Amino acid sequence: MVPKIATRRIQPKKIVPNPNQKKNDRGEKKLRIIPLGGQQEVGRNMTVFEFGNDIVILDMGLQFPEEDMHGIDYIIPNVSYLKGKEKNIRAVVFSHGHLDHIGAAPILLEKLGYPPIVGRPLTLAMIKHRQEDYKPNTSKRLKTIMVKKVTDQFKFGELTIKFFQVEHSIMDAVGVIIQSPTATILHPGDWTLEKDTKGKPTVDYTDLAKLKRPTVLMLESLGSTDVRPSTDYERMHKNLIKIITEAPGRLIIGTFASQIERIGWIITEAEKLGKKIALDGYSMKINIEIARELGYIKAKKDTLIKVNEIEKYPDNKIVVIATGAQGEDTAVLSRIIAGSHRFIRLKKSDTVVLSSSIIPGNENSIQRLKDGLYRECNNVIHGEIMDIHVSGHADRQDIAHMIKTIKPDYFLPVYAYHYMLKEAAKLARETGMPEKNVFVLDDGQVAEFDRAGGRPTSQKVPTDHVFVDGLGVGDISNIVLRDRQMMAEDGMIVVIATIDTKKCDLVQNPDLISRGFIYLKENKTLIEETRNRVKKIFKGNIKTDIDDNYFKNKIRNDIGEFLYQKTKRRPMVLPVIIKV
Amino acid sequence: MVPKIATRRIQPKKIVPNPNQKKNDRGEKKLRIIPLGGQQEVGRNMTVFEFGNDIVILDMGLQFPEEDMHGIDYIIPNVSYLKGKEKNIRAVVFSHGHLDHIGAAPILLEKLGYPPIVGRPLTLAMIKHRQEDYKPNTSKRLKTIMVKKVTDQFKFGELTIKFFQVEHSIMDAVGVIIQSPTATILHPGDWTLEKDTKGKPTVDYTDLAKLKRPTVLMLESLGSTDVRPSTDYERMHKNLIKIITEAPGRLIIGTFASQIERIGWIITEAEKLGKKIALDGYSMKINIEIARELGYIKAKKDTLIKVNEIEKYPDNKIVVIATGAQGEDTAVLSRIIAGSHRFIRLKKSDTVVLSSSIIPGNENSIQRLKDGLYRECNNVIHGEIMDIHVSGHADRQDIAHMIKTIKPDYFLPVYAYHYMLKEAAKLARETGMPEKNVFVLDDGQVAEFDRAGGRPTSQKVPTDHVFVDGLGVGDISNIVLRDRQMMAEDGMIVVIATIDTKKCDLVQNPDLISRGFIYLKENKTLIEETRNRVKKIFKGNIKTDIDDNYFKNKIRNDIGEFLYQKTKRRPMVLPVIIKV
Repeated sequence: MVPKIATRRIQPKKIVPNPNQKKNDRGEKKLRIIPLGGQQEVGRNMTVFEFGNDIVILDMGLQFPEEDMHGIDYIIPNVSYLKGKEKNIRAVVFSHGHLDHIGAAPILLEKLGYPPIVGRPLTLAMIKHRQEDYKPNTSKRLKTIMVKKVTDQFKFGELTIKFFQVEHSIMDAVGVIIQSPTATILHPGDWTLEKDTKGKPTVDYTDLAKLKRPTVLMLESLGSTDVRPSTDYERMHKNLIKIITEAPGRLIIGTFASQIERIGWIITEAEKLGKKIALDGYSMKINIEIARELGYIKAKKDTLIKVNEIEKYPDNKIVVIATGAQGEDTAVLSRIIAGSHRFIRLKKSDTVVLSSSIIPGNENSIQRLKDGLYRECNNVIHGEIMDIHVSGHADRQDIAHMIKTIKPDYFLPVYAYHYMLKEAAKLARETGMPEKNVFVLDDGQVAEFDRAGGRPTSQKVPTDHVFVDGLGVGDISNIVLRDRQMMAEDGMIVVIATIDTKKCDLVQNPDLISRGFIYLKENKTLIEETRNRVKKIFKGNIKTDIDDNYFKNKIRNDIGEFLYQKTKRRPMVLPVIIKV
Repeated sequence: MVPKIATRRIQPKKIVPNPNQKKNDRGEKKLRIIPLGGQQEVGRNMTVFEFGNDIVILDMGLQFPEEDMHGIDYIIPNVSYLKGKEKNIRAVVFSHGHLDHIGAAPILLEKLGYPPIVGRPLTLAMIKHRQEDYKPNTSKRLKTIMVKKVTDQFKFGELTIKFFQVEHSIMDAVGVIIQSPTATILHPGDWTLEKDTKGKPTVDYTDLAKLKRPTVLMLESLGSTDVRPSTDYERMHKNLIKIITEAPGRLIIGTFASQIERIGWIITEAEKLGKKIALDGYSMKINIEIARELGYIKAKKDTLIKVNEIEKYPDNKIVVIATGAQGEDTAVLSRIIAGSHRFIRLKKSDTVVLSSSIIPGNENSIQRLKDGLYRECNNVIHGEIMDIHVSGHADRQDIAHMIKTIKPDYFLPVYAYHYMLKEAAKLARETGMPEKNVFVLDDGQVAEFDRAGGRPTSQKVPTDHVFVDGLGVGDISNIVLRDRQMMAEDGMIVVIATIDTKKCDLVQNPDLISRGFIYLKENKTLIEETRNRVKKIFKGNIKTDIDDNYFKNKIRNDIGEFLYQKTKRRPMVLPVIIKV
């Protein structure tokens, strides 16, 4: 059960604009746009909009670590720019409930003194759940403002917030309009352009061309280099229905827990065919539970069963929807393959479907997942061999369509890697937009809009990585990461010299402890040689007022070099001098 | 300069079949096929063919490490099955000169007592070069048998070796036929089906259907799930010529050093336009030099210049062909972006072309490479936005074509991930091949062919990973790798307790040294608490005959648990007890 949490509702009208407002050089106020993430690396999505003393924030996402960020759980936006400005933050608006848009909320909202948060019902429910996961019984601190209808409007000081409908892979995704006296921002969050069978977009954006000018389109551009013809929803649905209908035995579908729309659709279709559905995986169960409580997913009382009940029904009546389609180590599908799942062993007659795109960086684990599935089971279906997934992100053609429909005065591609932003910018110029009205911001780079127009500035606010690792937020420095990297490469060796400071001699043979370097038991000669080298360093050189640092440096250098000569490896050498 | 190396040529007729031959249960000899790699992970390609006492080996490739194999340089096939059979090895045949087919040769040939090696000129030259790189002045130990014409035949005991033409991205790639009394093997090595503009294959394989039956097609199947329409060579060439002709400034092309055919083609085209070409990157320079010495790449004397000479010519006369298109840290393109290249800084007017496919696992580094290039330069062209690369591997359609043309009696997909092999096997059955004549072997699994036909057996020879790390071959165990993984995740902490065994007390405060765990300077309280815990472990418990292991275990468990409670991290805890 998702805990029912009473939250204080804050009426937006209660927020009084702060009269102490800064003005620009000409005495006018400017709208400042500051992306704190999402312009260089993907996921840490968060943008600050500042007009005088009114600050509205869009999204607080988390980024998953890259491969050289060993041991890091995730990365959150750096909010040092907002330090001292907490009282100016009128609201944090969330475009939708995916982790790269809400994942950093519990940590950052706490840090910023719990400013009011604005979002659609599912989005707010997802944030509340994450807050409880972070620290139980703290979601009551959230001050929520629910967007009941997409036509709702809120005034935060001199900034007015409106919304528009967008299509994405989770319900309640909305586009956000931020209206300031000097510019109107349009920001669809994550979006795609769903089309009918004739290729006509199902959502019409022409009205957005009529907003107060100048308009600034900040467009998520993850698909700006995606030129491959994409599958339409109808084809995907047709393929999936065929699979659900014809599966000779159990059907196991792996997908992202965040694909709530698709999961809801699968539940409905499977139910129509009289099948039982078991959800498996923590995030999968929680997300669907939240969506069901809000009435976004409907299923008869006995359609959803527990995964330990699947043996009670005939195989061809069972659909399991599980996490782990990216081959994540601890997710359901990997556990099934490893034989460590408590209730599911694959049978040759099972059908396994992987319905998700490949997240860059996961190729190897997905390949291993496929290898494992193909070993156990005769029917494995994935995107390479059948159209069973449609991306939640717009492609190049869609981006061009959006620009031509909205006809913005300024175009700022956002929420993608730098090269994708550059390609989207090129595309905007190709549609005829003037060069100077299209700009690609870096993380932290301030853009400003006043009566004379808009421009990127050379001002950059801090955006250094804030790493979350276990309970630590921001306590992992680059030094710690560099040490992890070094030990991952070639391991380490601890050299312990115990010295009698009266006799000026080593008390005993130096101790050597190594891990991840070589297997000591099989390298006794090397160890003996190393020990002798250490002894030689001290031999006759110890004085009563021994200089620890001199010897430590000498051990690091001499032993490091010696081991490199012998092995062409560079373990971290850690000298310890103990004086007795 | 590639060193000119005199090598002993061994005439195949001098090899006398060993009369001491094993027979099968019915007294007949069998052909045994044993893949030592290439059936589960990609790259470690090597197959053993054994008939009685005659062994012929195909390829000796290396595999690049996967992301969880920290610090490993590469992995080579495990040849323990061949131990004691060295004298039976009549020849090692190499299909072509790529590293996943020849990379393990220096180590394995040495280990196996330098059996004769068979290959086309470029292939042998590449092996010799690698041998010299491995140990200078050792290539003279290689006993080479050159395949001068594709119609050459060699008899090794009861095995006869023939060849056939294949298309791949390096010159001198050949398909290999291994004829034994009980079966004829066809193995194209790596291959693709080059087609003319009308879609007709340029190489005709119909003759291969006429070989002595039963025939066994062992088909590289990397592209068995590749259903996307691929670019033809003409289109790629047209695009590349357009780029070379129209580049407004310098043209920098990043590709694999192994793409020798394409690099040769680019040199020819650029020369026609009066441009100078600078090759950059160690493997790039060496590979092209080897190919030029054999006359496979022709260029006028002054067409190829050194990279430090590019400033002497107008920008639009310069083409640089460089390594690093996968974003490899130390390769040329990454050094250019990092600003650490000695001679090249990017200019906005440069055109940079990435002409290579993405090797799975390199997505992140390629994305970072693209980001870096787009920052420095206005014209970056890559496969996502233009057809400038054709894969050297056959796709699904080509695989079906090959099966239908050759009409083998048995089909064994090889040299790909397991799921790709399974998909290729499915495809073969769809062409009408009987279920039992199509089999997917695992690494080390023996298949046998006698007069009754062919079948996979349950015999499995060892194929455990042999890791190469620095100078060490096979000395890195899974224990060492697990330690590296653990330290990469959460670092480590060394706990040193110095004990006076007479006074039965700690001599001083326990020493704590940590790396990759937390930044000690900023966590003094935690360190103090940990130190107190260590003291408590010893307090009053030290006896004269102290049990080191008892205390070590207690430190590992108690301190490990304590640190996990405090940080939710699990650093490796290394207890050291020093007795004075």
